[in-house]
Amino acid sequence: METLKGRTDLAVELREDIEEKEEQGLDGISVVTKMDEKTGVKETRIIVENENGEKLLGKPIGNYITIEGEDLSEGDEDYHRPIAEAVFGQLKQLLEGKESILVAGLGNREITPDALGPFVVDNLYITRHLLKEKIISHKKSISAFVPGVMAQTGIETVELIRTVANEVKPDMLLVVDALAARSANRLNTTIQISDTGIVPGSGVGNHRNAITEETMHIPVIAIGVPTVISVPAILYEAMETMMELFKDLPIGKRMEAWSEEDKRQLSYEVCNKRLAEMFVTPKNVDEAIKRMSYTISEAINAYIMEG
Amino acid sequence: METLKGRTDLAVELREDIEEKEEQGLDGISVVTKMDEKTGVKETRIIVENENGEKLLGKPIGNYITIEGEDLSEGDEDYHRPIAEAVFGQLKQLLEGKESILVAGLGNREITPDALGPFVVDNLYITRHLLKEKIISHKKSISAFVPGVMAQTGIETVELIRTVANEVKPDMLLVVDALAARSANRLNTTIQISDTGIVPGSGVGNHRNAITEETMHIPVIAIGVPTVISVPAILYEAMETMMELFKDLPIGKRMEAWSEEDKRQLSYEVCNKRLAEMFVTPKNVDEAIKRMSYTISEAINAYIMEG
Amino acid sequence: METLKGRTDLAVELREDIEEKEEQGLDGISVVTKMDEKTGVKETRIIVENENGEKLLGKPIGNYITIEGEDLSEGDEDYHRPIAEAVFGQLKQLLEGKESILVAGLGNREITPDALGPFVVDNLYITRHLLKEKIISHKKSISAFVPGVMAQTGIETVELIRTVANEVKPDMLLVVDALAARSANRLNTTIQISDTGIVPGSGVGNHRNAITEETMHIPVIAIGVPTVISVPAILYEAMETMMELFKDLPIGKRMEAWSEEDKRQLSYEVCNKRLAEMFVTPKNVDEAIKRMSYTISEAINAYIMEG
Amino acid sequence: METLKGRTDLAVELREDIEEKEEQGLDGISVVTKMDEKTGVKETRIIVENENGEKLLGKPIGNYITIEGEDLSEGDEDYHRPIAEAVFGQLKQLLEGKESILVAGLGNREITPDALGPFVVDNLYITRHLLKEKIISHKKSISAFVPGVMAQTGIETVELIRTVANEVKPDMLLVVDALAARSANRLNTTIQISDTGIVPGSGVGNHRNAITEETMHIPVIAIGVPTVISVPAILYEAMETMMELFKDLPIGKRMEAWSEEDKRQLSYEVCNKRLAEMFVTPKNVDEAIKRMSYTISEAINAYIMEG
Repeated sequence: METLKGRTDLAVELREDIEEKEEQGLDGISVVTKMDEKTGVKETRIIVENENGEKLLGKPIGNYITIEGEDLSEGDEDYHRPIAEAVFGQLKQLLEGKESILVAGLGNREITPDALGPFVVDNLYITRHLLKEKIISHKKSISAFVPGVMAQTGIETVELIRTVANEVKPDMLLVVDALAARSANRLNTTIQISDTGIVPGSGVGNHRNAITEETMHIPVIAIGVPTVISVPAILYEAMETMMELFKDLPIGKRMEAWSEEDKRQLSYEVCNKRLAEMFVTPKNVDEAIKRMSYTISEAINAYIMEG
Repeated sequence: METLKGRTDLAVELREDIEEKEEQGLDGISVVTKMDEKTGVKETRIIVENENGEKLLGKPIGNYITIEGEDLSEGDEDYHRPIAEAVFGQLKQLLEGKESILVAGLGNREITPDALGPFVVDNLYITRHLLKEKIISHKKSISAFVPGVMAQTGIETVELIRTVANEVKPDMLLVVDALAARSANRLNTTIQISDTGIVPGSGVGNHRNAITEETMHIPVIAIGVPTVISVPAILYEAMETMMELFKDLPIGKRMEAWSEEDKRQLSYEVCNKRLAEMFVTPKNVDEAIKRMSYTISEAINAYIMEG
Repeated sequence: METLKGRTDLAVELREDIEEKEEQGLDGISVVTKMDEKTGVKETRIIVENENGEKLLGKPIGNYITIEGEDLSEGDEDYHRPIAEAVFGQLKQLLEGKESILVAGLGNREITPDALGPFVVDNLYITRHLLKEKIISHKKSISAFVPGVMAQTGIETVELIRTVANEVKPDMLLVVDALAARSANRLNTTIQISDTGIVPGSGVGNHRNAITEETMHIPVIAIGVPTVISVPAILYEAMETMMELFKDLPIGKRMEAWSEEDKRQLSYEVCNKRLAEMFVTPKNVDEAIKRMSYTISEAINAYIMEG
Repeated sequence: METLKGRTDLAVELREDIEEKEEQGLDGISVVTKMDEKTGVKETRIIVENENGEKLLGKPIGNYITIEGEDLSEGDEDYHRPIAEAVFGQLKQLLEGKESILVAGLGNREITPDALGPFVVDNLYITRHLLKEKIISHKKSISAFVPGVMAQTGIETVELIRTVANEVKPDMLLVVDALAARSANRLNTTIQISDTGIVPGSGVGNHRNAITEETMHIPVIAIGVPTVISVPAILYEAMETMMELFKDLPIGKRMEAWSEEDKRQLSYEVCNKRLAEMFVTPKNVDEAIKRMSYTISEAINAYIMEG
């Protein structure tokens, strides 16, 4: 949840904004959608192809895969299997040929909606030490750790991960983190996988705190699930609904002229400092986080066990 | 959190509304405030004296005591002692002469912001069985239980409490529950104690689901802490801030004419069904609930241990 | 874990003792064993048929079904399905025709190895309130509650359950509780189901604290899992191993003459008071309890969902 | 709990063995005991002075301070203050002049009796990042992390700590870990502080897995609390009690001739493999670990806050 203050960490939500603005072809952004009728699982791949795409979407060049299932936050165990299988399928492609993987479970274990990363690490089937001691003869080696957040450790998370990666020397770094979304419907129902790593804030350009191939010197895959909505994002949404309700009044017309930036600014202004630090979660957040982390670790475990 | 959908369960917040509306004396509502300069603890007693007061405040006739401490949600252990002492002082008055007390810890233990009641019960020093078996020779007998919520038990919470109260036959029932507030500043910083029990919803009149002397046939004291804000309450607040910002525009003038009911209605309309079921909490909610429940159980334990 | 001090709550373990003593037919006890080769699940039904059987086994007349799976405490999810199905099969027989069931989750939620009952209740699909409000049209009504232990409530657990059962008026009471075993191999790998309810201590005769058809006035099914071994039980086992090692020495011969009661007495004597209050658990106890409780609730849910 | 299989990690318990054997002066081991009559806190300093002392005690040259309080595992909050103050006093001496400290919380957070280290880290007041960003102007910088255990990470814990220490470059490493004891009376009532770091197993000599000044290149202080007894240790104790009971029989005389090693060997033999992997804990282990970790973190926080 590094980017909690941002409106959304989801490429699919960022793209919805563009869609509304520009109906012409989007130079530098391509989108492929796949729906499995039987399981109801929807996969969307957004490819940011060039600098123009970066500017449009506010995300660096790379692949952003979204896996969605209507009832992913529900308790129906059987439903999670197709999702775990879809995540496994994507990981298989992205990790192809990588035989040693280090997983970093980002976030704060003591704040439920931020605990996705630590919980995923808790459920992994770790093999690196068993391979080194020749207890098993798998090909794929997996190691993992929970770096904690700076308020708990006093150490920059990025430095901690780089340091451990230098020691373990994996082929690939997999970072798992909780994300912020804009829409209540996507909370705990969507998994985003990208090959660009994690770039805090608006996301484009060179960042000291980024966890990317550039800063880590190995490829980085990021897996995330939106678990919270920020209060300003809620207010922004409400403002858009109000504009719709008011559209025939003079104020409605006036608001239509506002830029997205104006509206975002107002969302912050109508929200006092204390409120801006709160977040919005569904009631079943504890259970939903446990389920989603289990689904992700199951997919990673399946990749490891495969051979 | 029975009344989560309502805007606030706090008598002090309801009174702020009236204050704004009517500057004349409030017939049927009296207020006494006490501030301890040394500890920073503020106690407010709102007395609803008659039916007019009920109508004005939307709460039944009785006493509503609010104990507030600026930094009550913070980790500073020493701060909680004066709060616990203030709660103890109020309980001592309200429970005077009652020698056997049954505590019901309302709420859902698995949803952190709703777990206040169960957590308070976990920390109580229970004496009833020790007295019956003459292991100790205290005068005051305390028993307690956690009824759960209807979604977990399939049984009406009120029926469950009445049934257990009939069996245990205490002099007094003490119910502890998490509340909803309107203001972010009051979350996990305020304790409300009342001698009217718990009445769901708008709170006046005869209710099948009320936990009151009328339904329980013994006096009922309710202790609560606001732990969440509902999303519509956040939107309502934002709307008021916007009205302030827009006050010189025609829309601002128009909005000023809206009744409170109009504004509340709009808050719901700009908020989709899924959002309306979410709630807003501070990040440190897990820790804050643990602290507040500890503070309350310490106050109850002090009353029991006293003799 | 009412009977923690006893050596074992498992009928199968009690029967092993008899086996050793008497090789002739056991009048009043019959045993049927069934092994599913494919799944590795073993079901043993011990029937106590008459008073002689009661005396021999130290358990009241009735059926004691044990479901065992070698690796039941392991993390392999797929393994739990056959176990849950075996439990479902037994429940189906025992509950036949019962349309309204009340589940009581016994034990102390705050002591991990005693939390089986509360955890099972947490995972149940409760229908009673949905049926009453005609939200669903199932035939089977299930309600549930967690009575807590006397140290937490000050109220006799049996009284609390009877009181709630009188209010809810189910056709059948299902009590779930953690048990004590004698053998480390059975911890968290065995489920015992019986139609005699729960009788504390040595188990035969009339008991004020029993949860049985006699005290509850409705049929009672008990489901339990052994989660701890008591320290005296460990010492007793060790003594038997020592006797075996020493069997050619004079002391060994002397010890052979000891009655079971003598040995049990010595186990307590070599064990100081503080040790006698401790218990022995496997390292993975937190995870094992979660899994076993999930397996049991899945079986109960399957019975409810069936129609 | 690296040395769980060993009988005890406590220097005070090892010394009791020697005492029994040799009544003459112990060359190489000196002991100073201090009792605070008012608070009931007892401090014992065992100094291993030379190689002979190492051989006698089975612990490397250095200081072993034990802080004991009869009722340390009990819920009486006030009692913990004198203990925290005693720990603070010892830390002050041992850390003198060290301005930057890295704390490593060893152990497995998911196994309650092994979670002491992680829980201590959870409660620390971390300053390193605040100092770097000049948000506060303390002198003392503290950072912390939870390395996990090899089964969770696949990475040697020692390597992980050395790697992070190389990055953070503290003046001093403080490792916190759960220990094994022999006596039930010391569980969760004793804190051991030593300036020798942590050396797995019997403890003397050069160890690849040791966390010591030799392997870390900075001074190492270890703080531990015994939280479990191993099953073989329980059996060993029982055997000694039996010998006492049998002392007038021929077997008793025979057993007296056994060496400690013989008895230890027998303890393992009468204990099957599965039992040997279990551990013995008091019922209140969850609460006791929380309290003890809070007491230790309070002492460390006091040292940091001091200036």
